Amino acid sequence: MSLSKNEIKFLKSLHLKKKRDLEKLFVVEGVKMVHEALESMHFDVQGIYHLEGYQHPKMSEVASHQVSITELERISGLKSPNQVLAVIHQRKNTALNTDTDKLILLLDNLKDPGNLGTIIRTADWFGIDQIVCSPETVEMYNPKVVQASMGAIFRISLCYEDLVKSIRSLQDQSFKVYGAEMHGENAFTTKFPVKSAIVMGSESHGLSEEISELVSSISIPRFGGSESLNVAMATGILTAQYKMQH
Amino acid sequence: MSLSKNEIKFLKSLHLKKKRDLEKLFVVEGVKMVHEALESMHFDVQGIYHLEGYQHPKMSEVASHQVSITELERISGLKSPNQVLAVIHQRKNTALNTDTDKLILLLDNLKDPGNLGTIIRTADWFGIDQIVCSPETVEMYNPKVVQASMGAIFRISLCYEDLVKSIRSLQDQSFKVYGAEMHGENAFTTKFPVKSAIVMGSESHGLSEEISELVSSISIPRFGGSESLNVAMATGILTAQYKMQH
Repeated sequence: MSLSKNEIKFLKSLHLKKKRDLEKLFVVEGVKMVHEALESMHFDVQGIYHLEGYQHPKMSEVASHQVSITELERISGLKSPNQVLAVIHQRKNTALNTDTDKLILLLDNLKDPGNLGTIIRTADWFGIDQIVCSPETVEMYNPKVVQASMGAIFRISLCYEDLVKSIRSLQDQSFKVYGAEMHGENAFTTKFPVKSAIVMGSESHGLSEEISELVSSISIPRFGGSESLNVAMATGILTAQYKMQH
Repeated sequence: MSLSKNEIKFLKSLHLKKKRDLEKLFVVEGVKMVHEALESMHFDVQGIYHLEGYQHPKMSEVASHQVSITELERISGLKSPNQVLAVIHQRKNTALNTDTDKLILLLDNLKDPGNLGTIIRTADWFGIDQIVCSPETVEMYNPKVVQASMGAIFRISLCYEDLVKSIRSLQDQSFKVYGAEMHGENAFTTKFPVKSAIVMGSESHGLSEEISELVSSISIPRFGGSESLNVAMATGILTAQYKMQH
């Protein structure tokens, strides 16, 4: 069974954000990532495209298409495609759930997909299960986000919404909302309440002024010459500080 | 004054490791990075190639070549070259200095240039000034390392040497040497001696067996689903744990 020209064209088009938005689908590649997708309780796999010999216990539950290596190369976004590609339904945008005792991360206008993916992977390591992204933050279904998350995208709930609204509703539910800034309270000595949330600013501009006024500034102390930390690194270090205490 | 064909060929060749090794030179690009290079006490700039209008107080101390945008595009390794490119002499490989009270980081076979660059940037933020790399670790003059370090490469001392030898000489000088592994002592409750060193393993294989036997295992506690942390992230979190105490 070989793929039609139209099928190939359609699958390739999903590497573009415009088409993903329209079809509410996205693509993941590789044995490990497709395994995570098939095992996920939050996502529905529409179909998989795999080479001869690929096996997964749940592949019979979804539309499975055996393809040639040439076909896989044509539909893949990778230089060296890895056995299998899955097309997956995007989740509906969930709402922030404030009825929790877990740390919540909020991302203000992050643009780099590698940073978002690394934040998702790290948050998942620490058992954080909600990340709120401002609408301008890079799309979670960007292939580089999915890849850098190493599968954590299938376990963590991301929602996109106006952060001012999220911060206000967290504060209404007695969360303390911190914002990572250059000259805030020392994160190494802060006592985090259980109900805490941390807002991280964009790579180039930090927190927007409106958000900065709503939150308690917090900083990772600096001892050397670098002018800044990578935003994913700063998020991981602050999350670790919170988890040390709770 | 325009560049000869041979000059252009030579400058382009420095984007290749083989040629950098041979000539003991490397290249950095962009206003900020060239500024760091010109200000560095540890590195000698051989020459800069800049567009009309570029100014730096120290540019008269080095060979400065004004070039056209077309020429800069030809010698640059970037998609959009940024005003200036510098050719810099590599440092002699320094030896590990064990006469220090600062944390020392050791990297066992790290392959990803982005990870090495991020580790250098983060170490510099925390005032760490020595990183020891196993000989198989990615070259510090790789353009992606230099770029991800955001200039910290000009402030931190990296040496490449056999890690077994480094670990033994650290232990001889009463350093406690930790190794980041999956099932070690909880890094959130560890009391780090002032004289501490931490060995980080490769992205895909962790610590080599020989090194694992020499060091005290330490782990960042895991609360969620991710199977691992990115190695730069883990290095940053462990360094922050040490700096909280000292």
